[in-house]
Amino acid sequence: MKNCIVGQSGGPTAVINASLCGVASAALKNENIGTVYGAVNGIVGVLNENFIDMANILKTKEDEELLKTTPASFLGSCRYKLPKLDDEKDDFKKIFDVFTKYDIGYFFYIGGNDSMDTVDKLSRYAEKIGYDINIIGVPKTVDNDLMETDHTPGFGSAAKYIATTVREVGLDSDVYDLNSVTIVEIMGRNAGWLTAASVLARNEKCAAPHLIYLPESDFDDEKFFNDIKELNAKGVKNIIVAVSEGIRYADGTYVCDKASSGLVDTFGHKCLSGTAKVLENMVRDNLGFKARGIEINVLQRCASHFTSLVDINEAFEVGAAGVAEAVAGGTGKMMAYERVSNKPYKMQIVSRDIKNIANGERVVPQEWISNGNDVTQEMIDYVQPLIEGTPTLKYENGLPVYLKR
Amino acid sequence: MKNCIVGQSGGPTAVINASLCGVASAALKNENIGTVYGAVNGIVGVLNENFIDMANILKTKEDEELLKTTPASFLGSCRYKLPKLDDEKDDFKKIFDVFTKYDIGYFFYIGGNDSMDTVDKLSRYAEKIGYDINIIGVPKTVDNDLMETDHTPGFGSAAKYIATTVREVGLDSDVYDLNSVTIVEIMGRNAGWLTAASVLARNEKCAAPHLIYLPESDFDDEKFFNDIKELNAKGVKNIIVAVSEGIRYADGTYVCDKASSGLVDTFGHKCLSGTAKVLENMVRDNLGFKARGIEINVLQRCASHFTSLVDINEAFEVGAAGVAEAVAGGTGKMMAYERVSNKPYKMQIVSRDIKNIANGERVVPQEWISNGNDVTQEMIDYVQPLIEGTPTLKYENGLPVYLKR
Repeated sequence: MKNCIVGQSGGPTAVINASLCGVASAALKNENIGTVYGAVNGIVGVLNENFIDMANILKTKEDEELLKTTPASFLGSCRYKLPKLDDEKDDFKKIFDVFTKYDIGYFFYIGGNDSMDTVDKLSRYAEKIGYDINIIGVPKTVDNDLMETDHTPGFGSAAKYIATTVREVGLDSDVYDLNSVTIVEIMGRNAGWLTAASVLARNEKCAAPHLIYLPESDFDDEKFFNDIKELNAKGVKNIIVAVSEGIRYADGTYVCDKASSGLVDTFGHKCLSGTAKVLENMVRDNLGFKARGIEINVLQRCASHFTSLVDINEAFEVGAAGVAEAVAGGTGKMMAYERVSNKPYKMQIVSRDIKNIANGERVVPQEWISNGNDVTQEMIDYVQPLIEGTPTLKYENGLPVYLKR
Repeated sequence: MKNCIVGQSGGPTAVINASLCGVASAALKNENIGTVYGAVNGIVGVLNENFIDMANILKTKEDEELLKTTPASFLGSCRYKLPKLDDEKDDFKKIFDVFTKYDIGYFFYIGGNDSMDTVDKLSRYAEKIGYDINIIGVPKTVDNDLMETDHTPGFGSAAKYIATTVREVGLDSDVYDLNSVTIVEIMGRNAGWLTAASVLARNEKCAAPHLIYLPESDFDDEKFFNDIKELNAKGVKNIIVAVSEGIRYADGTYVCDKASSGLVDTFGHKCLSGTAKVLENMVRDNLGFKARGIEINVLQRCASHFTSLVDINEAFEVGAAGVAEAVAGGTGKMMAYERVSNKPYKMQIVSRDIKNIANGERVVPQEWISNGNDVTQEMIDYVQPLIEGTPTLKYENGLPVYLKR
């Protein structure tokens, strides 16, 4: 019987702890697994031997429920980039020394693209040195941009929060009898999934968002102004625009570059932010409309007060399935969702080779984008099932209660 | 039997329609009142004779429930400033001609400080010309800055949303093992009530917000840096700062003036915004910490997906009480909350003379502010009862359903 380690990495989501709960509770129940270690701050916690015993965290059913609805990474996260395998620095040796010391036979890493790079490297290193371990990636990202999976845990909840917020902002903006443009900036880096999901705000009472711009279409200032002018000419006074933080011009320049600080993170990704502000100023200066930029910011990835029950449950299940896969002998895999049907919504969990996933980026297909400023019915049918249901939260003094280590 | 008009004015809130529902449903049931007109876009709707019959809106109990939980001003709003009474422009004559034409004996205006100015002027003009009408203000503002009332409808829901969001942002920010400062910018103009309410985020699992800066205390850059350095020296790595949009230096300059556009609204109020961004840059440049500014923006006033049931119910009741007051002969009054006790929370509705309210501004008492960067237990005891309870929402396709005219 071997022990296991579970870690979390990358940006937090509202359901990353549901996956942690899925992994940890399944591992605690599995007779092939001994101690279930939680690595504090992801792979950095492994390097530093900073572990907590998950058995002490999940003592009761109530602990599990609380962890499932707690936002952000309970174990802490990191953005630590492992060196290249050929670069043979100390990291790999150190990590596997720790694995040996703690008798680790299973390693679960919950994260996005960069974290899957870690899973890929560790499993290749294990093979290289002949260390017997099962290494499994558990997907996580609000951006929904992981390869080889129908969608990612965290996306549904963020989509629900964003669509609701855009519907509410639509009503809020519509109270004055004047021309206004409200630009809502949505996360997703180079993938437009989350911004596209704002389309769900629309119903017979709500026309917002009136315009949707994704990074998958080249942005053009003149087209943007014309889109607004056309709507205004049709009598739409208060126009709500959903834009991805990562929209770009045809030459590849980010729109937010007009304002941004040029900061990059440890993986070299540009810090995208300020797109709404840039567009707000452009609208005011060029069209003379009242304009307001709203950056939903991290609220969209941590709003556990308003999540999708489908997302929470799936996030839990994909974690638990990762344990089953590892114990069955799988390694160098990421667990993934495969959609069986849309109506009724049916999904199954499968495993995929990590090498086809690490560092890839799955973007919105061109045929789901309409006129460069909207999305098609296919997109609506795709996202709709992922936002259904609302979990029951525990409240204390009027606020939801969350777990913290 | 006379008819009545109800209108909404100023910035929307999540519960302004609960007050509209309170006024309209009480008026529809009242045997002294005939037709209940809703003025579209507030006093501008009266000037333009743009009315809807509220009997057509509130046909069923379900309509009422839906209106109560719909954000923003269902009737539309305005920021139209009436001229001075002595200025004797056409507005007053025109408004009272409309009142005569539609046989109006009761006028209800739901709004904040500026709207109470309208109530004040109209009731004084009525007295001056001897027109028999009962004019009642119904309070509304997330800012909680109206005089002569314990608190205002809209405040409790915004406070609940803000406290929850700050708790969630606190968890989100705490995942990385590095020094960071997250600045959350909160509405309230020159009053710090909403920012102070963020203190409710704290519990045994959550230390955020670590610092709270209100407009009622002079802001000082050096003190701010020292406050952060002191916390950091005590081992607090990820510091959450709650700041009011309207914080100022001792010389009266707004902090956001370092970034702002200098725009003013029709009432001449400065558009306060950008405070978080200014502080974010200051922290990065001066302390070298990772810094992030989050402007909660209009989300805090329109988030009907997450409101306080106490607030919704009180907002409804204060509207209904306005009708009772008017029919009983009251005029030139604003309905107000008077707190009877904190534990258990008991509140009663009273009426107050409008002349003591219009254009006033009720700010946080100095004795509820602690060390210029926190609030006292009195503040906590004051806000806590106002955020309790969660209304049941109607959902369709995974999202809350809202009413629209």
